Amino acid sequence: MVGSSYIQKKLLRDHSLRARAEKVIPGGMWGHMSVKALPEGYPQYFSNAKGSCLTDVDGNKYIDFMCGYGPIILGHKDEDVDTAFVEQLREIDLANGPSEKLIDLAELMVDIIPAADWAMFSKNGTDATTACVMIARSKTGRRKIAVARGAYHGAAPWCTPRLAGTTPEDRSHLVYFNYNDINSLEAAVSSVGDDLAGILVSAFRHDTRVDQELPSPNFARAVREIANRTEAALILDDVRAGFRINLGGSWEPLGIHPDLSAWSKALGNGFPIASVTGKDVYRNAAQQVFVTGSFWCGAAAMAAAHATILKLIRMDAISHMEILGNMLRDGIREQASQLGIKVRQTGPVQMPQILFHEDPEFRLGNLFCITALKHGVYLHPWHNMFLSAAHSETDIELALTATQHGLEAVAAAN
Amino acid sequence: MVGSSYIQKKLLRDHSLRARAEKVIPGGMWGHMSVKALPEGYPQYFSNAKGSCLTDVDGNKYIDFMCGYGPIILGHKDEDVDTAFVEQLREIDLANGPSEKLIDLAELMVDIIPAADWAMFSKNGTDATTACVMIARSKTGRRKIAVARGAYHGAAPWCTPRLAGTTPEDRSHLVYFNYNDINSLEAAVSSVGDDLAGILVSAFRHDTRVDQELPSPNFARAVREIANRTEAALILDDVRAGFRINLGGSWEPLGIHPDLSAWSKALGNGFPIASVTGKDVYRNAAQQVFVTGSFWCGAAAMAAAHATILKLIRMDAISHMEILGNMLRDGIREQASQLGIKVRQTGPVQMPQILFHEDPEFRLGNLFCITALKHGVYLHPWHNMFLSAAHSETDIELALTATQHGLEAVAAAN
Repeated sequence: MVGSSYIQKKLLRDHSLRARAEKVIPGGMWGHMSVKALPEGYPQYFSNAKGSCLTDVDGNKYIDFMCGYGPIILGHKDEDVDTAFVEQLREIDLANGPSEKLIDLAELMVDIIPAADWAMFSKNGTDATTACVMIARSKTGRRKIAVARGAYHGAAPWCTPRLAGTTPEDRSHLVYFNYNDINSLEAAVSSVGDDLAGILVSAFRHDTRVDQELPSPNFARAVREIANRTEAALILDDVRAGFRINLGGSWEPLGIHPDLSAWSKALGNGFPIASVTGKDVYRNAAQQVFVTGSFWCGAAAMAAAHATILKLIRMDAISHMEILGNMLRDGIREQASQLGIKVRQTGPVQMPQILFHEDPEFRLGNLFCITALKHGVYLHPWHNMFLSAAHSETDIELALTATQHGLEAVAAAN
Repeated sequence: MVGSSYIQKKLLRDHSLRARAEKVIPGGMWGHMSVKALPEGYPQYFSNAKGSCLTDVDGNKYIDFMCGYGPIILGHKDEDVDTAFVEQLREIDLANGPSEKLIDLAELMVDIIPAADWAMFSKNGTDATTACVMIARSKTGRRKIAVARGAYHGAAPWCTPRLAGTTPEDRSHLVYFNYNDINSLEAAVSSVGDDLAGILVSAFRHDTRVDQELPSPNFARAVREIANRTEAALILDDVRAGFRINLGGSWEPLGIHPDLSAWSKALGNGFPIASVTGKDVYRNAAQQVFVTGSFWCGAAAMAAAHATILKLIRMDAISHMEILGNMLRDGIREQASQLGIKVRQTGPVQMPQILFHEDPEFRLGNLFCITALKHGVYLHPWHNMFLSAAHSETDIELALTATQHGLEAVAAAN
């Protein structure tokens, strides 16, 4: 869909790096950042970034709507966050115990998150979701965890979306429901009798390749009520959505308080940090489980997270992302309507998903995105995207120029 | 064993921070860096570090023989590593894909590690050991993993040393042998028939609270032969020992090449990074498993790891640590002998373990360590310690002054 001449010209260095990588990295790249599932023309390697702008190793610049798949919430290389990190680094980072920054950060999270009476820190979103499951099991003395079918909760054997290398026992205590489907949740819960340790639920249904779904207020209430009734933990997986919907937790606007929450991604604006927060009644259980990691007490990432949260508050960053997200969504809706293209835009506006009607193989989505990419805008055909506080109205206007080209290409191909 | 007046004077700020932490962190601290298992008088919080010196929040300075429980191998705040990190940070850290530093680092590891044909990167040692197990299972299509009783391979549900929050199924496919015991390994292996996916073995027996054991050459050869015979993976857990015994892998001096190796701790001199390396025949299996994390492609930690390895080579850091480790061990042996104290010093000299005869509750070990701490030397009573390339002969001489006081206290108490 993109001429090889384009790729040869635009991604010369990228392709030479890929050839080097093929020799020393299995398949050239692993995990969610491999571009092998994306249309040809996407760069794999990047060399610079600032604010909303990302530069690949060939010097091509993009307005970035993936934000590192979520972590970059204030923009790339935010000066306040990077300064906080580097200043902490010049004092102390990793030692035989934490620095005071651990307490500053825990206090700040307890302060802004109504359902948080305490906090713990780790490095991966998977560390946080896994710890939540362990704490729920430790508290209840039960085994079963209810999770939504198709939801992503990390890449450990118990939750990784691909089964290679796992055993059935890794997920023998998971039972499944459908997101936003109270009946299926009731059925899953009653199937395990009195053995339910927790209900693990994403902030919204942000599964890849499908329309996103916000939790219906009834569903969120039902999750809370069922957890109360069964004395199981309501575990909110706020790893991906955390700090983009509400600084107090993504279900705060619904008035639903989780017992345990998993955080990561945006918490440190790109510096590696994750967190579990929880209610007082889970405090003892959290003490019982042994979770740890070599770098979990690194002070610099904690300083970065502290600075990130303060700046998100100071800037009213979520309102900013919502306003720009609405601009982008309204603009694309109008463009598609003019061209007679059926496009589905779902999820929170600051975490947009754009899918095309009757496009199960993402032929249209790929064409749309690769055309936008050629016009300097980095979108994703089937993973929810991310706005940041560094995006400007000008960025959105430029993005809409690119989406206009993308939609015209879709109209021509349809 | 240490007067409360000492603690009140010396750890005033530390104790006020602990009081704050108790409110917002379960138990005040989690994991291996909690000092609750150490004798009273150990600081929990640190404020500065440089080279071999660690400063707590009350301004007390210590010669650090824990090195952040391993990661600090060139010394705290090594200028070359920190500069490489910060310079990379000023270009790009976390984006929608890696930077060229990923390939530089993978190539360097493949270059210096004879058993490495490829490398992948993550954030925690547990990420690396877990990925190794998954890759072994993916390659073999089998389920069972043989592990040594009491060995630490991380803090995920399948391996965490405390069972709270885990289920029996998390480790239903583990079978156990005793380190350095070929018969027990043969028995464990034959107990699983043709279902052995891998043998997961630590670089040496570095279990806490017991004497350390280097692998006997016969044992290491037997592990390799059994893995060959059963077509299972030999997985070397080099997370803790990696880069301190041999830059090519800790079993390189034994002439034994693992199929898969897990690395972390010292790889980035304190910056969060882990790695799996493996042989070509495991390349396809490594591609099949889906392991990933939000921050695994962060370029700055990769730049730090690259700089760390180059400096370890340049300095011949391992020889330096061995020379100083021998100075420390010989000095303590001589001191103990003069005082008629039976002390057992085990493990590689650069990762010393010091235990006392007939001291199951570590009454003597605690007294020894807390006395040394009062004299400005940070030792550990039951976890292996770590030297770094930043330790000097003067540090060892000062340490020996402190151990002399410690051993005299032990002699007086015995």
